[in-house]
Amino acid sequence: MARHAIGVDFGGTKVLAAVIDVESGEVIGTGKKKTSAKDGPDELMKRIFATCDDAMDDANISIKEIEGIGVGIAGQVDAERGLLVGTANLSRSVVDLPMAERILEKYGVPAQIRNDVQIAAVGELTFGAGKGIDNFVCIFVGTGIGGAIIQHGELVKGHTGNAGELGHTTVDIEGRICGCGGRGHLESYASRTAITAAVLGELRRGHPSILSDLLPKIDPANPGRAAIRSGILRKAVEAKDDVAVRIVTAAGVYLGYGLASIVNFQNPQRIILGGGVIESVDLLFETAETVARREAFPNAGKQVEIVRAALGDNSGVVGAAVIAATA
Amino acid sequence: MARHAIGVDFGGTKVLAAVIDVESGEVIGTGKKKTSAKDGPDELMKRIFATCDDAMDDANISIKEIEGIGVGIAGQVDAERGLLVGTANLSRSVVDLPMAERILEKYGVPAQIRNDVQIAAVGELTFGAGKGIDNFVCIFVGTGIGGAIIQHGELVKGHTGNAGELGHTTVDIEGRICGCGGRGHLESYASRTAITAAVLGELRRGHPSILSDLLPKIDPANPGRAAIRSGILRKAVEAKDDVAVRIVTAAGVYLGYGLASIVNFQNPQRIILGGGVIESVDLLFETAETVARREAFPNAGKQVEIVRAALGDNSGVVGAAVIAATA
Repeated sequence: MARHAIGVDFGGTKVLAAVIDVESGEVIGTGKKKTSAKDGPDELMKRIFATCDDAMDDANISIKEIEGIGVGIAGQVDAERGLLVGTANLSRSVVDLPMAERILEKYGVPAQIRNDVQIAAVGELTFGAGKGIDNFVCIFVGTGIGGAIIQHGELVKGHTGNAGELGHTTVDIEGRICGCGGRGHLESYASRTAITAAVLGELRRGHPSILSDLLPKIDPANPGRAAIRSGILRKAVEAKDDVAVRIVTAAGVYLGYGLASIVNFQNPQRIILGGGVIESVDLLFETAETVARREAFPNAGKQVEIVRAALGDNSGVVGAAVIAATA
Repeated sequence: MARHAIGVDFGGTKVLAAVIDVESGEVIGTGKKKTSAKDGPDELMKRIFATCDDAMDDANISIKEIEGIGVGIAGQVDAERGLLVGTANLSRSVVDLPMAERILEKYGVPAQIRNDVQIAAVGELTFGAGKGIDNFVCIFVGTGIGGAIIQHGELVKGHTGNAGELGHTTVDIEGRICGCGGRGHLESYASRTAITAAVLGELRRGHPSILSDLLPKIDPANPGRAAIRSGILRKAVEAKDDVAVRIVTAAGVYLGYGLASIVNFQNPQRIILGGGVIESVDLLFETAETVARREAFPNAGKQVEIVRAALGDNSGVVGAAVIAATA
């Protein structure tokens, strides 16, 4: 009989749940909701429950056939206690939320809570671009830049659980202030948020770009939490829009320097790049790869394999389900 | 009966050999010679043999009691084939030198060749500041800046053998050209070489400093391969010499940013700082620690233990001997 678990990937804009066959990695059924930065702890849990219910409906599977539920979320997590410690993208009222306990109360199955990038890395390790690779690093470019390290075939959690945070390494010591408060962090130059800020700046200064038409709803003078969708960025780059090409190239150069540092410091066999912006915008991937190989030690830079994540949007839910089933 | 091996630490200015009791880590006897950048492969091997002979004489132990010889050297090494691939600090004629084979021919015992920082990390892991710690990073500040990663209790070698090279990660994307050809690497800001260059620049511009008296032999206009000895730097800092304090503080800030990136990316339980400059100049250690804790994620930065290497100059020879005895 197949073994099933539910994986939940809770992101800055949406929450995705899926019933996964944990022996094959197959997605049996899915549910999806938007998330809101205003959600308090109860609304957040309700949204997770609703997507889990939808995924089970879609898979035509009842909770009795589910071994466990794994949740990945962009934030600080205490995996041992099943706690969401806090997150930059959600309401400040979401602090020390005992997610695993709430899930156990609701469904009567054990739950595991992890960082969103760590679940994606486990997904790629088990069924994706990291299968059979002992020693790789995953980097996901989205709202922020997250990462995860697999060493000796295992996820490196780190002493306080934050290992892999390449987005928060300094690439320019006198550089931009990061959302986390740090200085010159890679995330401030190469994330979707950084790209959006740079584009809106160019539009505000009146530089001609088809992005002014493609982004009708953002007021450049008051962008708020605006984020350019990856598909729109791809369209503009494919149309050779000067603003888009220039800004994506600059982001790719920074990302490439970050990857070169990883190649020199961690010296992985493989780097797996994923996330919405990477998947959509080839120019970002290609620029980052070129710069990484050029800037790294010659031998290490030549030999490292730089590839795209294989499971796309599903790497997170697959990995979360695997963690839930093997915990 | 005690088990003995010889560890050799071949650096930019000296080569140190020691007979080690590999069960206790005790140094039984030592030998030491200067090295020369002009040495070809034969001179280099002769120097190693002479220090090994001296160490055995000093220990009053014959080669029959030696299980193996481990050599650590600042350069690119092919550990599997026992090859010194090349090194920046020695003659260009030293390429693909089969050190393990030469040692076996000479002494009839097996030999292991490793990077100089990797042997020091193994020394600290086995008998020093990393004993019992599963997950730490060593950083050694000397002529360059080297590092090594211990993960899951094992040395992380990396796919091409260069894991741990924190000195060659970019901290300033538009920054100084590194000796390796890279740009903005930490080593260009915080190594003894970088500190020396900055000091000589200040002296050349006529800034008053007691270092002009302490460094009688360096011609600021033509520094060549000059390197300020750590003891002299310490004297100048202790005398509150403005040039020395300013330059060491600046180096410490860069080193601190590099460590903060490590805390965020690798999230180790402990960081072990070693090397001549760190041992001698407290201001460098203290500045780096303060900046690292300030710039890292709050929780990770608070919890990481930042300590000095415990074996001092001997971490390399102890580690090399341990590797030779356990290979």
